Amino acid sequence: MRISELGEFGLIARIAELVGQPDKDVVVGIGDDAAVVRTGGDKYLIATCDILVEGVHFLRGKITPHQLGRKAVAINVSDIASMGGVPKQLWVSLVLPQDAEVGYVDALYQGMREETSRWRVDIVGGNIARSPWGLVVDTFLAGEVEPECLLLRSGARVGDLVLVTGHVGDSAAGLALVLDPAASCDEVHARRVLEAHFTPTPRLREGRAIAKSGLATAMIDVSDGTLADLGHICERSGVGARVWADRLPLSDAARDVAEALGKDPLEWALSGGEDYELLFTAPPDKAEELAALVHRETGTPVTAIGEIVPAEEGIKAVRESGEVLPLERGGWNHFR
Amino acid sequence: MRISELGEFGLIARIAELVGQPDKDVVVGIGDDAAVVRTGGDKYLIATCDILVEGVHFLRGKITPHQLGRKAVAINVSDIASMGGVPKQLWVSLVLPQDAEVGYVDALYQGMREETSRWRVDIVGGNIARSPWGLVVDTFLAGEVEPECLLLRSGARVGDLVLVTGHVGDSAAGLALVLDPAASCDEVHARRVLEAHFTPTPRLREGRAIAKSGLATAMIDVSDGTLADLGHICERSGVGARVWADRLPLSDAARDVAEALGKDPLEWALSGGEDYELLFTAPPDKAEELAALVHRETGTPVTAIGEIVPAEEGIKAVRESGEVLPLERGGWNHFR
Repeated sequence: MRISELGEFGLIARIAELVGQPDKDVVVGIGDDAAVVRTGGDKYLIATCDILVEGVHFLRGKITPHQLGRKAVAINVSDIASMGGVPKQLWVSLVLPQDAEVGYVDALYQGMREETSRWRVDIVGGNIARSPWGLVVDTFLAGEVEPECLLLRSGARVGDLVLVTGHVGDSAAGLALVLDPAASCDEVHARRVLEAHFTPTPRLREGRAIAKSGLATAMIDVSDGTLADLGHICERSGVGARVWADRLPLSDAARDVAEALGKDPLEWALSGGEDYELLFTAPPDKAEELAALVHRETGTPVTAIGEIVPAEEGIKAVRESGEVLPLERGGWNHFR
Repeated sequence: MRISELGEFGLIARIAELVGQPDKDVVVGIGDDAAVVRTGGDKYLIATCDILVEGVHFLRGKITPHQLGRKAVAINVSDIASMGGVPKQLWVSLVLPQDAEVGYVDALYQGMREETSRWRVDIVGGNIARSPWGLVVDTFLAGEVEPECLLLRSGARVGDLVLVTGHVGDSAAGLALVLDPAASCDEVHARRVLEAHFTPTPRLREGRAIAKSGLATAMIDVSDGTLADLGHICERSGVGARVWADRLPLSDAARDVAEALGKDPLEWALSGGEDYELLFTAPPDKAEELAALVHRETGTPVTAIGEIVPAEEGIKAVRESGEVLPLERGGWNHFR
């Protein structure tokens, strides 16, 4: 059987089965944004890796090495933020084409360094190999999380509201602009969505505020797409979800770029992915308090975009008119 | 400037400078086999990553996925063993060709699982991406080490003896056989060197025995080659070394394969690499006791192969006749 028949998530489920039950020191193994492990101290070790492959995740001619370095760090910080943790140390594996220039590697590390400084992370190790083909950047980030702050994908309960930080859809708008650079739209808006795509800001302060509040029940970051990532929460929590499509926080920038390109920004918001916003759930009587707290502590707005329903109802996106959107549970899936 | 002009180790030095001084929680950053970090507990966190790239580190038609899985784990375990630590959890990043078969991935994980079970390591996370080219396996291994057991590359002192576990040169003999499969030599010997190449045994028990003894001053694993890895110890310790070429522990198998192929087994032992033996130093009055202790506790022989000399004398391999071997400080170096 080909991997493409199984799909990325089918393959991950198969691997989780092959790998078997871990030791009791492992609090969270395969199946969440990061793994969590007991060490001798008061806090858990939390760690994750993320790989960026030329021609799959990025095109070398379209992203600068500085941007690529920043993004490689940011997407890992986001995975730790989405579980309530604090990132600490980074390891970097590079597979470099033989003809790569030293200046390219310098700029890549300067980008990583800019982003690690921002989150007080140290680059402590790594590995370099020659590539017979293109560039691969694999980053591994370790950090810590207090047991009481740890937020998993598996805690959502029927009746909870679904909340999201910031805006969704900007990164997909940025990607659409990269692929269609001739499109004419407002320059400020264009810059904004391109920044969202090339140098996303992980929601670390927001993740800590949510985790410390003790009010949220589940959390994930929006990397595969709002619907797909909500799907991951639903699967691990054994629930379904209804998304209120008209309440999705679209930015003016994404709307403007969509108009210029003749696209539907709602599709970007639902299925675009790579927004690195935090998607989380909370009981309805706590959601407003939690949203206000995050906004007060970080300046980032939080929007309620749906509710958790029984598993039998599946995952649906509905409009205020009652219309159910004919969307598949989309999102990025390697090998599909 | 091209990376090939700088070489792998020049590039690592440049990156270490770009990355700058880490936080006080970091005990060992870039420049040793693994990084070491203080956590809240009694033990340090020790972690390392190692990448295997198709066409560079392996040929997909020459190594089975089961062997590749075992090797990916073993070489990381070796890096933690060489600093005196104990491995605990593994993360796996895979970049898979679109046409890969599920059976291939199954066998790869079965190989990893076989090796992780052997060392009581759990596979707890990872990442899968599609490859537009070949296969890449990047593994990240975390473990722990007691502060008093930690052994660095930087502790060797003038007068220390240089010791090595087991045999060196078998892996290079195995590689030579893979590249020249028509060669006729003893079947048992052939199998032995092929096993050393495809499924090396990391010296974890030996590393722990050496570390706990408190008798060694520096340690590294033989991945780049005996001379090159001794060079890493010398560089970090600010010393030189004299290797007694005639005392290098060559196996009968390596000698036999060398004879069949018309090669010099000494060159494999000095510069072949990928033996994953432990190369360590100890004061002359402790070396014999240490070698006996390792042999008693693990069954693995230890051989004294040279001595540490002042930095000005450089690194030389000499024969009993007094002849200085005309070898460069060889060993594997990406981008050279």
